[in-house]
Amino acid sequence: MPFQQTGIPGLLVYEPKVFGDHRGYFFESYNANTFREAGIEYNFVQDNQARSTYGVLRGLHYQLEPYAQTKLVRVLEGRIIDAVVDIRKGSPTYGKSFAIELSAENKLQLLVPKGFAHGYAVISETAEVMYKCDNFYHKASEGGIIYNDPALEINWGIDLKDAIVSEKDLVLPKLADINHNFVFNS
Amino acid sequence: MPFQQTGIPGLLVYEPKVFGDHRGYFFESYNANTFREAGIEYNFVQDNQARSTYGVLRGLHYQLEPYAQTKLVRVLEGRIIDAVVDIRKGSPTYGKSFAIELSAENKLQLLVPKGFAHGYAVISETAEVMYKCDNFYHKASEGGIIYNDPALEINWGIDLKDAIVSEKDLVLPKLADINHNFVFNS
Ligand SMILES: Cc1cn([C@H]2C[C@H](O)[C@@H](COP(=O)(O)OP(=O)(O)O[C@H]3OC[C@@H](O)[C@H](O)[C@H]3O)O2)c(=O)[nH]c1=O
Ligand SMILES: Cc1cn([C@H]2C[C@H](O)[C@@H](COP(=O)(O)OP(=O)(O)O[C@H]3OC[C@@H](O)[C@H](O)[C@H]3O)O2)c(=O)[nH]c1=O
Repeated sequence: MPFQQTGIPGLLVYEPKVFGDHRGYFFESYNANTFREAGIEYNFVQDNQARSTYGVLRGLHYQLEPYAQTKLVRVLEGRIIDAVVDIRKGSPTYGKSFAIELSAENKLQLLVPKGFAHGYAVISETAEVMYKCDNFYHKASEGGIIYNDPALEINWGIDLKDAIVSEKDLVLPKLADINHNFVFNS
Repeated sequence: MPFQQTGIPGLLVYEPKVFGDHRGYFFESYNANTFREAGIEYNFVQDNQARSTYGVLRGLHYQLEPYAQTKLVRVLEGRIIDAVVDIRKGSPTYGKSFAIELSAENKLQLLVPKGFAHGYAVISETAEVMYKCDNFYHKASEGGIIYNDPALEINWGIDLKDAIVSEKDLVLPKLADINHNFVFNS
């Protein structure tokens, strides 16, 4: 099974199979059938890519319903700590965070369901991160949680004094102060 | 308009809009709505990624109907010459080739419709190439054309004596010798 559980329902780690030969390597970075066979079905409509320098921390972000996004996150170059927080109302793991190192080398992908806040910190000199999502960008529906909220207990892998954060992200509220409307489907 | 014509009907070059800031940059590498607004609608079900060293030449490949694939090709790292040949029966540009430099820097994407043979040569030390496609891999339906067929008139950007080619690709037929069943929809 290329999918691993994380301890948070619906949040999965995917590891694609890589074929190497004398030319280099080849892999299917995404295959809708591989997901379908595991009972996972999304219609990914947008791919996003961002380049960042060491210490850049983007997040934590989410979009409110009906614009909530499932995200499939991976790294094309460099290394990041990718982190999420479960903010699904009624979820048995509400408020729980999960962090994982994703890199161009380990090629792991994090499948982040709707109802999670998501962000990442760059722990290599530069990193190129890409994610697929199943709903379009809708600025007015954006919400977020401040990355350094101690309640989240996220180890971002960098000294937070070095964090390079957007002005928008610096003024995000704490988890205890957010309003949202995500439904947890068990 | 982010789409440019190439002189071959249906074959387009796409250039995404990149947003830069103090953290690095961000861009939508794919957005189904951007394509739909230009009258282009595909259901991409598979993403492929390959790493190759200088001189690696992959192609020219296609899959026969009903497994023919539309491909959206781009480069994540390095530089390639991406080349296609129109093999759509009845196409006014049947047999015509088109080649373009795609790179991580120029971020251009080539939209290759069904009924084209596709391949690329790596012109940087290494390159990481990715493409989306709207039909799954089906080995038994694979066809190809030999990269050095003079009738194609492709400039691959490398000395063909240095080309690193798979055993499978070395024995592909010339354009004049292929059998196929692609329909050209004007
Ligand atoms: C998310 C997004 C952004 N943009 C534009 C808006 C800005 O001009 C620019 C950067 O947007 P930010 O909101 O600053 O993005 P960023 O802080 O990088 O956050 C993104 O990466 C981390 C993810 O967690 C988050 O969902 C996503 O919003 O890109 C788009 O055009 N489309 C998008 O989907
Ligand atoms: C195309 C493809 C290949 N594979 C496997 C089969 C082999 O073990 C390995 C490499 O396959 P090749 O056929 O040697 O791929 P390659 O020569 O790199 O050709 C690919 O890149 C250039 C493209 O033009 C072409 O369509 C595509 O087949 O990957 C998959 O698992 N899924 C795929 O979709």
